[in-house]
Amino acid sequence: MKRELIENLAENKSTKISGFIEKVRDTRYMVFVVLKDITGKIQVSIDKEKQAFLVEDALKLTQGSVASFYGFMQVNPAVKAGGKEFIPEKLEILSIADALPIDAEANIDSRLNYRWVDLRSERNQLIFAFSSFLVEKMREFLLKNRFIEIHTPKLIGTASESGSEVFEVKYFDTKAYLAQSPQFYKQMAMASGLERIFEIAPCFRAEKSHTKKHATEFTSFDVEMSYIDSFEDVMNLEAEMLAYGLKETKEKFGEKVKEVFNVDINVPKLPFPQMKLRDIYDELEARYGFTVPEEEKTDLTTEAERLCEKLAKDKFNHEFLFVTDYPPEKRAFYHMRENGVLKGYDLIWKGIEITSGAQREHRLIELKKNADEKGLTKDVEFYLQFFKYGIPPHGGFAIGVDRLTMLLLNLQSLKETQFLFRGPDRLTP
Amino acid sequence: MKRELIENLAENKSTKISGFIEKVRDTRYMVFVVLKDITGKIQVSIDKEKQAFLVEDALKLTQGSVASFYGFMQVNPAVKAGGKEFIPEKLEILSIADALPIDAEANIDSRLNYRWVDLRSERNQLIFAFSSFLVEKMREFLLKNRFIEIHTPKLIGTASESGSEVFEVKYFDTKAYLAQSPQFYKQMAMASGLERIFEIAPCFRAEKSHTKKHATEFTSFDVEMSYIDSFEDVMNLEAEMLAYGLKETKEKFGEKVKEVFNVDINVPKLPFPQMKLRDIYDELEARYGFTVPEEEKTDLTTEAERLCEKLAKDKFNHEFLFVTDYPPEKRAFYHMRENGVLKGYDLIWKGIEITSGAQREHRLIELKKNADEKGLTKDVEFYLQFFKYGIPPHGGFAIGVDRLTMLLLNLQSLKETQFLFRGPDRLTP
Repeated sequence: MKRELIENLAENKSTKISGFIEKVRDTRYMVFVVLKDITGKIQVSIDKEKQAFLVEDALKLTQGSVASFYGFMQVNPAVKAGGKEFIPEKLEILSIADALPIDAEANIDSRLNYRWVDLRSERNQLIFAFSSFLVEKMREFLLKNRFIEIHTPKLIGTASESGSEVFEVKYFDTKAYLAQSPQFYKQMAMASGLERIFEIAPCFRAEKSHTKKHATEFTSFDVEMSYIDSFEDVMNLEAEMLAYGLKETKEKFGEKVKEVFNVDINVPKLPFPQMKLRDIYDELEARYGFTVPEEEKTDLTTEAERLCEKLAKDKFNHEFLFVTDYPPEKRAFYHMRENGVLKGYDLIWKGIEITSGAQREHRLIELKKNADEKGLTKDVEFYLQFFKYGIPPHGGFAIGVDRLTMLLLNLQSLKETQFLFRGPDRLTP
Repeated sequence: MKRELIENLAENKSTKISGFIEKVRDTRYMVFVVLKDITGKIQVSIDKEKQAFLVEDALKLTQGSVASFYGFMQVNPAVKAGGKEFIPEKLEILSIADALPIDAEANIDSRLNYRWVDLRSERNQLIFAFSSFLVEKMREFLLKNRFIEIHTPKLIGTASESGSEVFEVKYFDTKAYLAQSPQFYKQMAMASGLERIFEIAPCFRAEKSHTKKHATEFTSFDVEMSYIDSFEDVMNLEAEMLAYGLKETKEKFGEKVKEVFNVDINVPKLPFPQMKLRDIYDELEARYGFTVPEEEKTDLTTEAERLCEKLAKDKFNHEFLFVTDYPPEKRAFYHMRENGVLKGYDLIWKGIEITSGAQREHRLIELKKNADEKGLTKDVEFYLQFFKYGIPPHGGFAIGVDRLTMLLLNLQSLKETQFLFRGPDRLTP
């Protein structure tokens, strides 16, 4: 018999349900079993007299066990959760669980140790259904706009970008490194004439950070496009993509997310507001009396970043804020500059930077000069080759998928949004 | 002015085109420039008298340079390629190319050294547009069928499956390993109650193979599903997914693929035929007089695999063939067995195995027994934990995306279908 999902059960129709056992309650006349599948829960009601033949097996079911019940659903207003119950005629035990090692009160690290048990909650499963859907909608937006999805290598021959914070791999008789980002290769795709590409793939950072927004491995959503006139083209595309993804996701998951996470998904208006870094500091001081020493104004401090949420709300009635006109010192050498100002941006959402984007420097002479300044010319020699044989002007951005989900659902840290978190002290399970 | 794609050019409409320069021909009265973008090529015709102001810049354009022309398209039957030409009023040079290091005749290894130049050909760009589309359509099929996409970690704490053929990573003060496949983690997702998941991500194999179908890093399309009755459910899902992907891809790319690769995309009929391993050897002998020593009949030999293409055609008039009933010795310990026969399959297409699938062993006692037999119990201890606290019956399969594309387009090796090939001797560019 084909299995039916709990959310699709029709009244009085003979069928089979399968799922995890959440609870077994043995009363004088009845055994009540709560069974959960990916779509919901239902109470299975076993009458000890009428269905005596099921009782012995039903009482073997421990929390976390997996079973199928054959029978039918009936409406019963006396049943607390949803007014429906399942009347079984047959029970098939599929897997018996040992006593569960964690419960809902366990701390996050114990939960991660037994992540597969932790992920069984409706709340945690919703995080992944949600994130999968949001990413797919952003992908759909790009595909509709003539982007193609590529897969760049994660094993690379030289330590890219900086050399520090890079994982080293034993590669037969030599060494390889794990890609910190697909940056160089997505730019290579521009030199290849692919014009518009994206990649959704793991990135690796050997950082000993223990903040809520860092991980040693994470999923990056990377986009790159050719023939732009300026980085404004990149900002516009990103804003449209996010607005589209959020709109679609709100339609499908809005109510559920409100119910489970108490979070409203807001579809942002286009275009997103933007401000120059310097103007932000001026305005934070004027509005909120917030200031930092002059020498820190070359970047957004953590506190300033946090305040941008309020500023975007107060000044633009918007959740998002593009920050532009960073000085080049603290940014990657491959960002294009003009008169000492970067042609790039950060996007701040809910007080946290979710993405960096820029027009890239595609003129080899300028690029070499920038690399020289940072002392990187030797490290990036292979990358500089990409610019020798013709390359269109181009730009792009990257979004951390786990971070985006974390902010969207108002979660505590990446530990909750990664299927399996990876940090300096965590490589298991 | 907004750039127009070459395939969208309307007659006599003032616009801008941008792309790579394929050719510049300087004749007595005219300069002809062939410009290529992602959608096609067009001849730009410069009259040395009427557009004298463009000639100097046009002659600076080397092959591979990138430029924009402002002007309009006009129909001209005298123009060889397509009967259209572009009459320019302005030229903007975006990037000047050095003499190209490779040409169309270069061997595959030289081409890989300069992959970004190699990828500029229509043929190579088609491979990636094609592969991106096919994968998206298979993804779409799964999403419609209630699957969610997850991202499992590539950094793992223990050398999985076998220990050999695994890359070792320096991970702060300890060691990590690169995932050979998401196998253990997609099964973990089943223990998490996610029911139906897939992942499209890099896998890493430290194999010193130099065959056309091996790489040290490749993109794997992995699927896993719960509450199956047998591995036949997995086979059916896979066949439906492939048939859907091929149907959609044929519609979009069929003609182009025929033109460029001289390959017909055939949409396979459902269900795919299936045969037991033993019956295949019997039939190969009866039909074609092909035989191998008895002791080699525990698996398909390379030659038998190759002959399966003919057998599937002659016996079933089909391109695909599911092979079942392998003996357990040569297969992974996590495949379910019954009476000494594996509840799994290989799928052979065009004489090559493109996928392995199976029902997994979800009963901890049996699983431990299988692991013991292969001497793996200690290595897979963390994985065995996933089966202690309840897990549904489940199964799944994996397809190598690069291999699938290679076979579909009848290409020589993975070097042609990977954006950047990775092998024992190749980590660059």
